[in-house]
Amino acid sequence: MTELAGPVEIVGTGLLGTSIGLACRAHGIEVLLSDLSAEHVRTASGLGAGRAKTAQDRPRLVIVAVPPDHLADAVVAALSDTDAFVTDVGSIKSRPLEQIAERVEPALLARYVGSHPMAGSERSGPLAASTALFDGRPWAITPHATSLPEAVGAVSALVNLCGAVPTTLNPAEHDRAVARTSHLPHLAAVLVAGRLTGAPVEHLALSGQGVRDVTRIAASDPQMWQQILNANAAAVTDLLGELRERLDTLIDAVRFDQRDVLSEILRAGVAGTESIPGKHGDPGRPMRSVFVSVPDHPGELARLFGDAGDIGINIEDVRIDHDPGRPVGLTELVVDETRADDLLNSLESRGWTTHR
Amino acid sequence: MTELAGPVEIVGTGLLGTSIGLACRAHGIEVLLSDLSAEHVRTASGLGAGRAKTAQDRPRLVIVAVPPDHLADAVVAALSDTDAFVTDVGSIKSRPLEQIAERVEPALLARYVGSHPMAGSERSGPLAASTALFDGRPWAITPHATSLPEAVGAVSALVNLCGAVPTTLNPAEHDRAVARTSHLPHLAAVLVAGRLTGAPVEHLALSGQGVRDVTRIAASDPQMWQQILNANAAAVTDLLGELRERLDTLIDAVRFDQRDVLSEILRAGVAGTESIPGKHGDPGRPMRSVFVSVPDHPGELARLFGDAGDIGINIEDVRIDHDPGRPVGLTELVVDETRADDLLNSLESRGWTTHR
Repeated sequence: MTELAGPVEIVGTGLLGTSIGLACRAHGIEVLLSDLSAEHVRTASGLGAGRAKTAQDRPRLVIVAVPPDHLADAVVAALSDTDAFVTDVGSIKSRPLEQIAERVEPALLARYVGSHPMAGSERSGPLAASTALFDGRPWAITPHATSLPEAVGAVSALVNLCGAVPTTLNPAEHDRAVARTSHLPHLAAVLVAGRLTGAPVEHLALSGQGVRDVTRIAASDPQMWQQILNANAAAVTDLLGELRERLDTLIDAVRFDQRDVLSEILRAGVAGTESIPGKHGDPGRPMRSVFVSVPDHPGELARLFGDAGDIGINIEDVRIDHDPGRPVGLTELVVDETRADDLLNSLESRGWTTHR
Repeated sequence: MTELAGPVEIVGTGLLGTSIGLACRAHGIEVLLSDLSAEHVRTASGLGAGRAKTAQDRPRLVIVAVPPDHLADAVVAALSDTDAFVTDVGSIKSRPLEQIAERVEPALLARYVGSHPMAGSERSGPLAASTALFDGRPWAITPHATSLPEAVGAVSALVNLCGAVPTTLNPAEHDRAVARTSHLPHLAAVLVAGRLTGAPVEHLALSGQGVRDVTRIAASDPQMWQQILNANAAAVTDLLGELRERLDTLIDAVRFDQRDVLSEILRAGVAGTESIPGKHGDPGRPMRSVFVSVPDHPGELARLFGDAGDIGINIEDVRIDHDPGRPVGLTELVVDETRADDLLNSLESRGWTTHR
């Protein structure tokens, strides 16, 4: 894995651009910032994301982090005005690539490798930026057929420096993927949120965590999303069509009390949540079970969890085996394999009967 | 506000029942537990939520916390077998009330006041319970026309003891409200999650925080939700119909690049998120702005936020006024009014120039 070679130039000091700048600066990479807004550059610089770019600077990698409608222009400019490798962090890859390819010679196009970090939130602007925004997050790298390997290497080095998990996809595949994992969820959130406006205040008073989670991303910048959806219209329309078919089935199932159909839809939802990869995309740390006898008196389980909490070891799962023939229940605590012996020793020293 | 008079009996020691037990025990109220599953009672008791009910016990308030299909039975039993006030924590209020009213004399029905805490998550079972589950959460109280005021008082006392925020609604209003704030979001999450199953692994690798937030509640128990949706079919079908109309409009807007229409839908989504009440339903603590001069060098803003962080005062909002004519930017930090002077003093002692 090659190290990232600076200086890097970041065009567009919003949430993503500023966060990339912060991550690069944290690794000692020189960062040059530019943006249509001098204010954004000053804020990003003030936050430690780099310094304003000057005419003398010669970046080795340019990262374009501007809204979708300006993306092709900015990439073309970077390819034309520098001999740097160029990437962007835009949400859709196919259409910008087409637009860029129409406007630059192949020799320049070869220095471009699109990419897309799956990070950020409904917040925007440099003040929302963070050095750790990309930690453990997926970051798609989407080279085209003639991208230089060295360009792909530079972008990969950036992704790794930011602590993200790279996935390589061709641009069209990427766009279909994000239609499903990002654009459809976004539109569902928007439609649900749209049903809240104008509802009676005493109805809205019954809002719980569920509706907040579902609608959170609907607070995102509408102008940005209009551009994203327009650029990915085909893939998005396909999925919206699938959603409408399922919605029709669901409406009939509820209206006509078709329990099997409703059950199938609900269970498909559960299965869908299980399809989402675990945090950081890793397969999971190895776990081990620790067994503790817990007398069947009120509060004893709570005392066990309290002690485990004091010990400071995270309990990933709990299973309880109540044997009706015994007054003592066997409790299974699932913990990180590397902490299991510590937990056993600590619990034993507090008087618990454990089973090794 | 009357104090809650114990003992209370909790029928159904799942997530909600056990959490109510924990909250009551934390306030010294005697709690009697019952459940079809002796294991659940033992676990709930082990967690400190109460003790198993015996034939000699005489509860003053019975809280029914069983799944929707069993709810009417359990309320009828509690009204018939005790002289306690009876409430339930079910997600829908109208149909259970009808079923209960068909089966008990008016004198018994008068002791019943339905209620519904807007708390919980996709998790279930006693092990997921928490004393603080209801803190600051809305809790609907839904008396019927002949509910005794004393019964309403007992339920209100319970709601307050649990730290929740009571809202009174008639049962039909409640069901319309939760169709919008809970059932529609749930179904949107389910439909989106359903599009993830079977997607290529390399597509799912691009899952970010957005899809996780949108689909989180889709992991909930399908059997429970089938019962809830069946019991609220009319209100849910109405809202699903509205959703389908908006979805049709959205599909055309994306397919035919109708930018104004798409923009309106997206902006309605933003407005919807702003309709959701702030945390704990409170109007917000009074804020005050603190103004600090920040020299326009790289990293100075970061140093200011770092110092404010060290001081330990939460910054609610930041606004920056860059005056192009000055090398110094004026930064406005919005903080809790009661902490503003502390922040000013601490920043000044660290060399910052502030403006009082």
